[in-house]
Amino acid sequence: MVAQVFAMCILYRAFIMYDSVKLKRFCSAVMQMTGLSAEESELFAESLVSADMRGVASHGVTRLTAYSRRVAERLVDPHARMTVIGDGGSLLLLDGNNAIGVTTAYRAMTLCIERAKENGLCFASVRGGNHFGYAAFYTELAAKNGMIGVAMSNAPAAMAPTGGKKAIIGTNPLSVAIPAKSHRPFVLDMATSVVARGKVTLAKKEGHSIPLGWGVDSDGKPTRDPARVSTVLPFGGVKGYAISIIIEVLCSCLSGAKDGLHIGSMYDYSGTRQDCGFFVGAIDYARIMPAEVFERKTAQLFETIKNSPCAEGCDEIYIPGEIEWRRMDEAREKGISFRRR
Amino acid sequence: MVAQVFAMCILYRAFIMYDSVKLKRFCSAVMQMTGLSAEESELFAESLVSADMRGVASHGVTRLTAYSRRVAERLVDPHARMTVIGDGGSLLLLDGNNAIGVTTAYRAMTLCIERAKENGLCFASVRGGNHFGYAAFYTELAAKNGMIGVAMSNAPAAMAPTGGKKAIIGTNPLSVAIPAKSHRPFVLDMATSVVARGKVTLAKKEGHSIPLGWGVDSDGKPTRDPARVSTVLPFGGVKGYAISIIIEVLCSCLSGAKDGLHIGSMYDYSGTRQDCGFFVGAIDYARIMPAEVFERKTAQLFETIKNSPCAEGCDEIYIPGEIEWRRMDEAREKGISFRRR
Repeated sequence: MVAQVFAMCILYRAFIMYDSVKLKRFCSAVMQMTGLSAEESELFAESLVSADMRGVASHGVTRLTAYSRRVAERLVDPHARMTVIGDGGSLLLLDGNNAIGVTTAYRAMTLCIERAKENGLCFASVRGGNHFGYAAFYTELAAKNGMIGVAMSNAPAAMAPTGGKKAIIGTNPLSVAIPAKSHRPFVLDMATSVVARGKVTLAKKEGHSIPLGWGVDSDGKPTRDPARVSTVLPFGGVKGYAISIIIEVLCSCLSGAKDGLHIGSMYDYSGTRQDCGFFVGAIDYARIMPAEVFERKTAQLFETIKNSPCAEGCDEIYIPGEIEWRRMDEAREKGISFRRR
Repeated sequence: MVAQVFAMCILYRAFIMYDSVKLKRFCSAVMQMTGLSAEESELFAESLVSADMRGVASHGVTRLTAYSRRVAERLVDPHARMTVIGDGGSLLLLDGNNAIGVTTAYRAMTLCIERAKENGLCFASVRGGNHFGYAAFYTELAAKNGMIGVAMSNAPAAMAPTGGKKAIIGTNPLSVAIPAKSHRPFVLDMATSVVARGKVTLAKKEGHSIPLGWGVDSDGKPTRDPARVSTVLPFGGVKGYAISIIIEVLCSCLSGAKDGLHIGSMYDYSGTRQDCGFFVGAIDYARIMPAEVFERKTAQLFETIKNSPCAEGCDEIYIPGEIEWRRMDEAREKGISFRRR
């Protein structure tokens, strides 16, 4: 069956599929072949294809092979259900029990949204996770429910601390989504590194130099040579370094998941579970004010920023998430091309 | 009385006071002369002097004149009490009613700590605020109570959005404190700009150039000439820009406080209230796990980072807050000099 899955994946990529609906159907079919339920496979497919539609190809269908192989080989448990380990009312400790990451994070956020309706907000720290795809998939769920969404994950160590030269902390992603009246939500979805490791790899392949500050060599010295990059650096210097630690604490120390130095790689098929951690939550502003008032205020703020004068050489000021919304619209209309990025 | 207060401030600064206890007593006495209660004056003095002890002179006793004048002239109400406007259980909407900012933020955090004991966490969005000094003053209070503390404030517009040239967003500060076993807490306390506006002013005074990326000129072009800087830039490029917007939303859109473009300056004595907003909260991890387990895990993480190999040219890797703790110890022992920084 595993071989069959691979063959389908490879064949499919070769023909390039443009229609997002058909693509989701395909991804779902592959996942169902691994033993994942139809419902979970569809959710998973939605996450993968949406990533491609948003232009985040690194978290899209390109990873189907790895994800499906992990499930097919039972490194990820397709039948696991998330359990509540600790319940503080508005603070939850959850265990994904090695279920597929997308399902775990989606269920954790769904639970937070339910609880936030009662108490105004709810956050969950989750252990026993697997790579959850792109983080905005969960915060946009909160935004669709009229709430501010927050999602983070820890990740395998890839960044040196400020002043260090050894990768200790993951490029721990952070997403926040904020609804606005008659606007698409504000959506931040970022890694805490200056750039994704993939950009360094690409520069190396293409023989380009990279800007100083992206990464350091094995002595910890800044380098422009992508071939000499030993570890990438946190965004924004010491401030980003601190933020990446906070995410690590909320995702691993608070949940009991593995830390960045011990998380299993999703490309390691030797038998190691990933056991990464998430921290997700929702803020139900309607509990303290009319939702409409909040959403009008955010829309006004975003419009003020959007309509403020551009710097020389800049055509347009963007609200975080705006570029991705546009790409989504385009992909929905024209389809997705895997060759364009 | 106002003149008397000023004279005392100026005289005091001229003699340079080294002892932190005496300095607190002095600041408290000045504030009590303005009509602030003894209890609130002492709390306020604690915030001011602690800032100097931590090495954050910009938020220390240097601001006593402005703060005391605002109260003396009743631009800030020394008798106001914070009120609860909206209560979602774990999400609160509070009004500082133009009380002194330190008191408001301290009371808001105290309330969050109480509520977090019930529900695992609690956050409050606060309007009717005045400048609250340094943000870690509140997150360290949470840490002292065995909780993770979070504090943010919006601030007068001082940063252009990415791609823009007009200051729209404040250098909105963010603080997070995390307890650790047999360790001082991790304490992040940062502005969301690359550097404080004050550093540009200093470079201008001293005739130095500044690194590219600190600020842009009136056309929005990056400049090395501090005299040409029209607005500073968010830290970490578009990521810091997004984070500064999130803080603005949580502090003003969620509370009903003024946004960065409309907040009154604390140095404007013409009659305008500041009406800035805060977002503070506490996470009581003991509600979902033994506190000792969490604090052992954070201590281990911080030690792993601390003991990881240094980059060439670096002597020591710091955990956020560590430098400030050391300065505090030194200031407690040797006193504070206003001339050393």
